[in-house]
Amino acid sequence: MMPRTPRPAGSKPAAPRAPRTRGRPTGEAPGLRPRLLDAALARYASQGIAATRLRDIARDAGATPALLHYYFGDGKHLLEAVIEERILPAIMPMRDAVAAAAAGDDITAAVAAFVNGMSDTIEKHPWVPALWVREVLSEGGALTSVLIDESGRPIVSLMASRFAAAQARGEVNAALDPRLLELSLVSLTFFPPAAAPLWRQLLDARGLGKEDVCRHTLELLQHGFRAEPRNGG
Amino acid sequence: MMPRTPRPAGSKPAAPRAPRTRGRPTGEAPGLRPRLLDAALARYASQGIAATRLRDIARDAGATPALLHYYFGDGKHLLEAVIEERILPAIMPMRDAVAAAAAGDDITAAVAAFVNGMSDTIEKHPWVPALWVREVLSEGGALTSVLIDESGRPIVSLMASRFAAAQARGEVNAALDPRLLELSLVSLTFFPPAAAPLWRQLLDARGLGKEDVCRHTLELLQHGFRAEPRNGG
Repeated sequence: MMPRTPRPAGSKPAAPRAPRTRGRPTGEAPGLRPRLLDAALARYASQGIAATRLRDIARDAGATPALLHYYFGDGKHLLEAVIEERILPAIMPMRDAVAAAAAGDDITAAVAAFVNGMSDTIEKHPWVPALWVREVLSEGGALTSVLIDESGRPIVSLMASRFAAAQARGEVNAALDPRLLELSLVSLTFFPPAAAPLWRQLLDARGLGKEDVCRHTLELLQHGFRAEPRNGG
Repeated sequence: MMPRTPRPAGSKPAAPRAPRTRGRPTGEAPGLRPRLLDAALARYASQGIAATRLRDIARDAGATPALLHYYFGDGKHLLEAVIEERILPAIMPMRDAVAAAAAGDDITAAVAAFVNGMSDTIEKHPWVPALWVREVLSEGGALTSVLIDESGRPIVSLMASRFAAAQARGEVNAALDPRLLELSLVSLTFFPPAAAPLWRQLLDARGLGKEDVCRHTLELLQHGFRAEPRNGG
C-alpha cells in the first residue's frame, strides 16, 4: 500500500506541527519517509546528531532537501520523529521484558532478562551502542534526557530495588551495595557492545558470539553477587 | 624558574617540526605553553577534538591565536603535544602498575592493581573518562589508535594471559573465558566513571565515594571469577 499521508495514521506524532499548506513537492516517492528516518538514524549513530547535516540525510535516502523538509519540517522535528518511531520502539521491548522478569522474587531471572534483553536489542538494532555512546554517555548528549526518562530510570530503579530485596532475603552477598550491583550489571551489559570493535581486535576474540558473551556475563555475575554458602551448607 | 624556550628541554617533541624563523610575537607570557596544553585538553574532553577551534583554546588560555600558532604551529601539532605531554603521562603510571602487579602469579593482586590503578588515574586526571568516551570509544575517535597501542594492547593482553594462567592453575572458574574475563574487568572499571553523571543521579548514589566503588567492584569480581570450592572444601 502506498503511503497517502506524510504521517502514518498509526503513529503518535512526536510534537504538534503546523499543518502544511503548500502541498507536496513533485517527486514524492513511496517509502521515502521511512527511508529518511533510517538515513537520519544511521548518520546520528555514526557521526553524532549535532554534526549531521540535513542535506546528507536527504542524499543518503535518495531525496532532495525539499522533500525532507516537506516530511519533517526542520532538524528538530526530524529528530523527534526518529526518537518516536525508531529509537523508543527499539528499546521499549527490553524495558518491558526486564519489568516482567523483575516482577517476582527471582533475582537470577531478572538479571538474565536484563543481560539477554540488551543483547537481543543490539542484535536487532546494531546502531544502539554507537548512538548511546555519542548521545547518552557523552557530555551534552542530545538523547540523555529522553532515554534516561523513558528507559534508564525505570529499569535501573527497578533492578536496584530487586537487588536490595534479594539482599534482604539473604540471597545477595551483604558486602555488596545493591545500587552498585545495578551499576555493575549495566557496565557488564552496555560496555562490551559499545567497545566491541576495540576488544574483538585486542583480545583476538572475533570468534566469540553473542551467546558466548551472555553466558560468560551471567556466569560471572551470578557467582559474583550471590551470598556465600553458610558453613556446612 | 621561568621557561626560556617554547619547548621544555626535558620533553621529547611529539613530531619533528620546522624550525621557527620569525621570532616570538610580542606578548609571550611565562607559563603560557602549559596553559595552552591544559586549555586544549579541557576542550578536547568536553566537546571533542574535531569540534574544538584553535581560537577557543587560545581564548581559554588568555592568549591570542598568533601565540598559540607560535608555540604549536597547527592543530595537528598541538594535539601531538597534548598526547605527549598530558595524556600519555597520565595513563602510563597505571600501565606500569598493572604490569608490575601482573608479573607474578597472584591474580587477585593483578586485578586489584587494575581496578585501583584506573580509579587513582581518574581521581588525579578527571578529564580521562570524557576524553576516552569521545575519542577512543566513539567511532572514528582521534585517540583510538595511539591509546590502544600505548596502553590498551599491552595491559589487556597481559591481563588476559594472567587470567588464562590462573585458570590453568585451577584458580579461575573453568566456565569463564579468560579473554571475556578481561573484558569484564575493563567494563567494570571503565564504564562507571564514564557514566558517573548518569548513575549518581539515577541510583541516588552521590554519597558513594571512589573507595566504595573500588571495594564493591573487587568484591563482585573476585567472587565472580574464582573457582568453586571443591566438594567438602
